[in-house]
Amino acid sequence: MEPVYRLTISCPDRVGIVARVGDFFAAHGGWIVQANHYSDPATGRFFMRHCVRLDSLPFDLQTLKEKFTPIAEEFDMDWQVRDSRVKKKLILMASRESHCLADLLHRWHSNELSCDIPCVISNHDTLRDMVEWHGIPFFHVPVDSADKAEHFARVNAIVEEHKADAIVLARYMQIIPPELCDRYHGQVINIHHSFLPSFVGAKPYHQAAERGVKLIGATCHYVTRELDAGPIIDQDVIRISHNDTVDDMVRLGKDVEKMVLARGVRSHLEDRVLLHGNKTIVF
Amino acid sequence: MEPVYRLTISCPDRVGIVARVGDFFAAHGGWIVQANHYSDPATGRFFMRHCVRLDSLPFDLQTLKEKFTPIAEEFDMDWQVRDSRVKKKLILMASRESHCLADLLHRWHSNELSCDIPCVISNHDTLRDMVEWHGIPFFHVPVDSADKAEHFARVNAIVEEHKADAIVLARYMQIIPPELCDRYHGQVINIHHSFLPSFVGAKPYHQAAERGVKLIGATCHYVTRELDAGPIIDQDVIRISHNDTVDDMVRLGKDVEKMVLARGVRSHLEDRVLLHGNKTIVF
Amino acid sequence: MEPVYRLTISCPDRVGIVARVGDFFAAHGGWIVQANHYSDPATGRFFMRHCVRLDSLPFDLQTLKEKFTPIAEEFDMDWQVRDSRVKKKLILMASRESHCLADLLHRWHSNELSCDIPCVISNHDTLRDMVEWHGIPFFHVPVDSADKAEHFARVNAIVEEHKADAIVLARYMQIIPPELCDRYHGQVINIHHSFLPSFVGAKPYHQAAERGVKLIGATCHYVTRELDAGPIIDQDVIRISHNDTVDDMVRLGKDVEKMVLARGVRSHLEDRVLLHGNKTIVF
Amino acid sequence: MEPVYRLTISCPDRVGIVARVGDFFAAHGGWIVQANHYSDPATGRFFMRHCVRLDSLPFDLQTLKEKFTPIAEEFDMDWQVRDSRVKKKLILMASRESHCLADLLHRWHSNELSCDIPCVISNHDTLRDMVEWHGIPFFHVPVDSADKAEHFARVNAIVEEHKADAIVLARYMQIIPPELCDRYHGQVINIHHSFLPSFVGAKPYHQAAERGVKLIGATCHYVTRELDAGPIIDQDVIRISHNDTVDDMVRLGKDVEKMVLARGVRSHLEDRVLLHGNKTIVF
Repeated sequence: MEPVYRLTISCPDRVGIVARVGDFFAAHGGWIVQANHYSDPATGRFFMRHCVRLDSLPFDLQTLKEKFTPIAEEFDMDWQVRDSRVKKKLILMASRESHCLADLLHRWHSNELSCDIPCVISNHDTLRDMVEWHGIPFFHVPVDSADKAEHFARVNAIVEEHKADAIVLARYMQIIPPELCDRYHGQVINIHHSFLPSFVGAKPYHQAAERGVKLIGATCHYVTRELDAGPIIDQDVIRISHNDTVDDMVRLGKDVEKMVLARGVRSHLEDRVLLHGNKTIVF
Repeated sequence: MEPVYRLTISCPDRVGIVARVGDFFAAHGGWIVQANHYSDPATGRFFMRHCVRLDSLPFDLQTLKEKFTPIAEEFDMDWQVRDSRVKKKLILMASRESHCLADLLHRWHSNELSCDIPCVISNHDTLRDMVEWHGIPFFHVPVDSADKAEHFARVNAIVEEHKADAIVLARYMQIIPPELCDRYHGQVINIHHSFLPSFVGAKPYHQAAERGVKLIGATCHYVTRELDAGPIIDQDVIRISHNDTVDDMVRLGKDVEKMVLARGVRSHLEDRVLLHGNKTIVF
Repeated sequence: MEPVYRLTISCPDRVGIVARVGDFFAAHGGWIVQANHYSDPATGRFFMRHCVRLDSLPFDLQTLKEKFTPIAEEFDMDWQVRDSRVKKKLILMASRESHCLADLLHRWHSNELSCDIPCVISNHDTLRDMVEWHGIPFFHVPVDSADKAEHFARVNAIVEEHKADAIVLARYMQIIPPELCDRYHGQVINIHHSFLPSFVGAKPYHQAAERGVKLIGATCHYVTRELDAGPIIDQDVIRISHNDTVDDMVRLGKDVEKMVLARGVRSHLEDRVLLHGNKTIVF
Repeated sequence: MEPVYRLTISCPDRVGIVARVGDFFAAHGGWIVQANHYSDPATGRFFMRHCVRLDSLPFDLQTLKEKFTPIAEEFDMDWQVRDSRVKKKLILMASRESHCLADLLHRWHSNELSCDIPCVISNHDTLRDMVEWHGIPFFHVPVDSADKAEHFARVNAIVEEHKADAIVLARYMQIIPPELCDRYHGQVINIHHSFLPSFVGAKPYHQAAERGVKLIGATCHYVTRELDAGPIIDQDVIRISHNDTVDDMVRLGKDVEKMVLARGVRSHLEDRVLLHGNKTIVF
């Protein structure tokens, strides 16, 4: 796709928002190639995402921001505008399971995911070779189960050092401490191996086997203080039968996990996910 | 949902369409509750659907049309605007199979489908009781296989008499003659019991069994002169296995057929389907 | 399909079961047209379902049972054998929502479901006409919310009078009292309008909207004392988005509910569902 | 799973097959842990797959084969028996697209696929590094488009040298010559990037875009002389919309392709796929 500015907006709904934004771009020759709107009837809040061809506008990102600010203030908008050519920096975190990490790395390596991956952090050294083959630095940051504070202090230092825009927990099996949940609100993407809100917490496939469900699933969500309860970005399921053991579920579930995580990460990278309380708008 | 005007537009893409339409509504206090856009990069054509709260505009449908006409002419638009309270008139046609007809009638009867059904036409008398129980007139119009002209003349007379907005072929197994395909272009909705373009024509489940496919499907499309080749509105599939006989496929396929047809009809009724050559935009 | 005897077995797993059962039928010329086996590695229990062509065996059901009994005792089997021509008696219960009831009635009426429906019971009179049009008696048994005992006493009397083999709760919104749960264990089939174990109890679509899930589902299960916690027969889901209101979920969910319930009922009618503690084997 | 002997059988259906096979294993203490049967009503052919615990039988594979031969001859069986511990040798072939190859290599590397991969053959050198990182030899065998005979002679030599049990075409874009199709009948697995029989041949996603379908798919099948017309092992689809360009379809389709290919390969490795003319039984 041609380079675009991506404008995302959330504001109280009222008459004239679409017209005002449309006028703004039209007045400067802006060519809108994608436009999405959503008006929440329950909360009266309005959400919008526009992609405008960069080469159709006569100014740069900074000028665009300056010129748009009065409109944003008039309508009391939460808003962002990004240049689609500027890649987000994504730090991946993993543990010992390789399927989600390998999948994301391959998508990045084959140019399917447009982002930079400054490094991978893991509490185990298992996946170092795979990561380094891709030319990506690998940080092994062990966890002392008696005191995890040091682990998370080092993780936070690495994230800050690399100025990451988002952190993807690709089956990283540690619970993120509350202060990091808050600091990176809406920036930490997790994949949970169940169809939430079913089977929160540890060993969801064992819980699923115990309950005798006929479908298993995976959920990609933003991490918040409450475990596995943050805003859901995407979910999917796969059919199982009585024939499937917990080991089969783990194997079948991997495919759902990696697909759902990849879709969620892609939506995040393309600025398609807007937060609305504990829910998401995914354009 | 609150009553709305539904505006659908198709025109050559250029800068300023969204702004002009947005301005038009904003100038009159129009509250846009749904908005969809699509710009086809291959053909340079632009498509749009807006729902504007009826109670937010100070004029009636006729005035709205008059006031919008200059904009439509300036941008060379194909356009329509409808009042969501005015129900479309749908004539259903069936043969002897009841599943699609029963499904549509039940959705209508339970107020899930917002339309009028002035009558049902069938080349068999089999389903008369079911139709009449719903309080809908039933016309049995037999087909003489040696000369189908009389059948279609009567069908056409009934359609004209009832001023139908659309005709739904709910497993009506006759081929529509070319002149009717042309006269009701974009108004005749068919359900074909295969995942088109596979298995065009008669006995698609037998063809599917012969080929040994692992999924069977159904396709809802507008009828055109070329058999089973018109613009596709919706499709879906269901998994089968070697265990499934042709009879099983027929049975399993019924569920897909009726679901896909109902979704296609609903999209048509809500003015969500825009034609683009032999393809559809479904907002 | 040709008439068959359906033999279902559950017993402790050990060497020789398949051989012994196979020998038994072979010795009498029995033609096995379907055979399913499952051995649970966790519990060491074995499950089996055989369909044997009725016209290939030289004796009637009673004689078959007598001749098979020694084998059943030797292997400590829970077992049943049924003649596929003998239709099960299914009593349907509903409230005011028609979609599941209409769907089951249509499947029965068009010979897709092989069963007898001696009557329909409802706590409202709303659906009487629809039921009676099918030639099925309709019992309106109102519920006094202060004292539901009388309601369930009458329901039980009707079930006993009609010698029902199974009861299908087609969106019957009352909680079955514990003594009826026990009396009809494995015979009462419910459809719950969520993907269990998520959203147990009342208003699951409201719960789903609150949580912001991206798929909604339905679960067909046997009723037990614990609400919405009985053995699951089948489940399915449908994708939703932020655009879908609770009303949209209710509408979209109806299609999932009726499909899942119909599949579950069909499996039950064909003796495909074997209980295994709080789980099911569905052959 | 514990090590097993996998017995697969195809023979004319008649009374007593199940009993005879069951007796044979029971007589030697054989513990059947999985059993599947299918009787084709159209052709009167019977198919069977049994997994018998290796440690429950008192003899080795060779003795098992000798002892079973009289039964096989009596019932005119096509049959095979394999030791689940003996890994099949799979040669992968690819071109420049990496998604299917990377997916299979990762599944193999993480012990999800139980097989040996003696080498990868490609008509391009693009994927050498990825393959060699896994410790697998990579053969670059260029194709001279004017004369492909030399290419296929070398491919055949490599396949023979490595005594491959099967060849997987992981988006290898060359048409296999007829003599190789015949020589490796039932051993060459291809992934075609459409829902066959729709869109045979080149550029299926372009064909799909042209036709305006609402789902795209992929098909895993055995290669035969007729292009894209061999026995289908597995298929799947993914939903698209008018918004998706051909490039989007290519990207979305990759996920379907690699999933369907991996499932098909797994079924083949576990001896679950039995050929029945131009169709498959997949247990």
